[in-house]
Amino acid sequence: MPRPEAPRVAIQRWTAGGWTEVPDQVAAEEPLQLNLDGEPLSIVMRTPGHDLELALGLLWAEQVITDLAQVVRIRISAEAGEEEGAVAVVADLVESNEVDVHLRSAGRCPQRSFLSSSACGVCGATTLESLALDFPPVAPGPAVDAALLPELVERLRAQQRVFEQTGGLHAAGLFSADGTLEVLREDVGRHNAVDKVVGRALLDGRLPASESVLAVSGRAGYEVVQKAVAAGIPVLAAVGAPSSLAVATARRFDLTLAGFLKKDRFNVYSAPERLQR
Amino acid sequence: MPRPEAPRVAIQRWTAGGWTEVPDQVAAEEPLQLNLDGEPLSIVMRTPGHDLELALGLLWAEQVITDLAQVVRIRISAEAGEEEGAVAVVADLVESNEVDVHLRSAGRCPQRSFLSSSACGVCGATTLESLALDFPPVAPGPAVDAALLPELVERLRAQQRVFEQTGGLHAAGLFSADGTLEVLREDVGRHNAVDKVVGRALLDGRLPASESVLAVSGRAGYEVVQKAVAAGIPVLAAVGAPSSLAVATARRFDLTLAGFLKKDRFNVYSAPERLQR
Repeated sequence: MPRPEAPRVAIQRWTAGGWTEVPDQVAAEEPLQLNLDGEPLSIVMRTPGHDLELALGLLWAEQVITDLAQVVRIRISAEAGEEEGAVAVVADLVESNEVDVHLRSAGRCPQRSFLSSSACGVCGATTLESLALDFPPVAPGPAVDAALLPELVERLRAQQRVFEQTGGLHAAGLFSADGTLEVLREDVGRHNAVDKVVGRALLDGRLPASESVLAVSGRAGYEVVQKAVAAGIPVLAAVGAPSSLAVATARRFDLTLAGFLKKDRFNVYSAPERLQR
Repeated sequence: MPRPEAPRVAIQRWTAGGWTEVPDQVAAEEPLQLNLDGEPLSIVMRTPGHDLELALGLLWAEQVITDLAQVVRIRISAEAGEEEGAVAVVADLVESNEVDVHLRSAGRCPQRSFLSSSACGVCGATTLESLALDFPPVAPGPAVDAALLPELVERLRAQQRVFEQTGGLHAAGLFSADGTLEVLREDVGRHNAVDKVVGRALLDGRLPASESVLAVSGRAGYEVVQKAVAAGIPVLAAVGAPSSLAVATARRFDLTLAGFLKKDRFNVYSAPERLQR
């Protein structure tokens, strides 16, 4: 079975002793545009590979298709030229991040758009072109003591009593550059926790939050980075791993992105200059 | 700060020694219907609380609003009657899982639907009513040796070489009732990994997968349960925590839902009778 690629990136690794530049690998994340009968239906942020299965599985879960026989053919580039059971898989899309499923007759709900189930950074976008982000780079913002980032994660955990009870909540915390907790929100959805923090900052008249640090309990995918950029937050620290698109987006907008936050170490994927040594 | 409720549920806990019934708590998950100027815009699965912030943060990230002054008023029940900065918060919605944001003028993209960024179980639904699932209960299916479930997770991990490299991928594995791996898929998105597995099973003419066990590396939220039910899979085993709505949905469709899978123990939230002691 082919395995997803893990793109290589050069990162800065902080340990209690100092900094080293090391090569690293991150999980691949790219947008896939799903078309139904030639019309854009949805964009899914995914790890490339098995896109055919992804498209069909998604349409199945949504009951757009209830039988493989409803699918006449699938146009795709990356895995094209294959016969997949009774389905003709045709290789004539130029764009590799696109799959077009053609149905025998109109599916159960072909007119419906797929709606967001968790707040997301590609909402409203039906085509890859519309994903282009219309934000300025984040402001230089404050210098932050590198040793503070692991402490922020500890403070996030200390506040997270519900997580300890259920294991099922993500947290997002907005901190000042000296480590004071400004807002903490918890949610089953990683993106929701960030949206709640940003919504609070908006209500308090504090956007762009160009003097703050955002810490999140989970991974940093594209959407979390996009939400930080939208809020003008200069530093994002994630307990978990970043994706390739998260790294690329952070670099594009000059956001400091730190991941794998542990007590005595973390990785910096973008704009390390904000972190004081 | 008010903390999200953690609903109490009675569960069966398996340890290497046998079964005990214990009380437990799970993270609250409920759908929130977001309306813009009275029109349904999106449904977000979230932990109730701070819904006002969630709605505003989401609209901000999507650049539907770029200034709080664009918001005339917000109708909401759960957190109503408050003044929030310059925004009037009105308490006249009957439904507590609904928030209605009224803008001073049409926002940047009020006509756009919010699209799915990760495959989701509430796609296509703009109103809470349309969330009603149209699936039969899963078939009784096979009896499964309880001691097999921790082994499946070990097998999932053993296969997950990319996860070890990057820390950023989720895995979903479909297994036969005797523990043979049928399909494994990895993705940055938890839901995508499940969609790819189900898509593969569809292409192979194996849906409903009524003799199989699905193991997932992450948490079991509503959407993962919904996708298992849609595929007719009778047993779902998650390394992480389930949400309240995941438990309720599993019980409704008679899906066996196990969570917090560790080497020597796990919890069963629904339909434990499929697991042999």
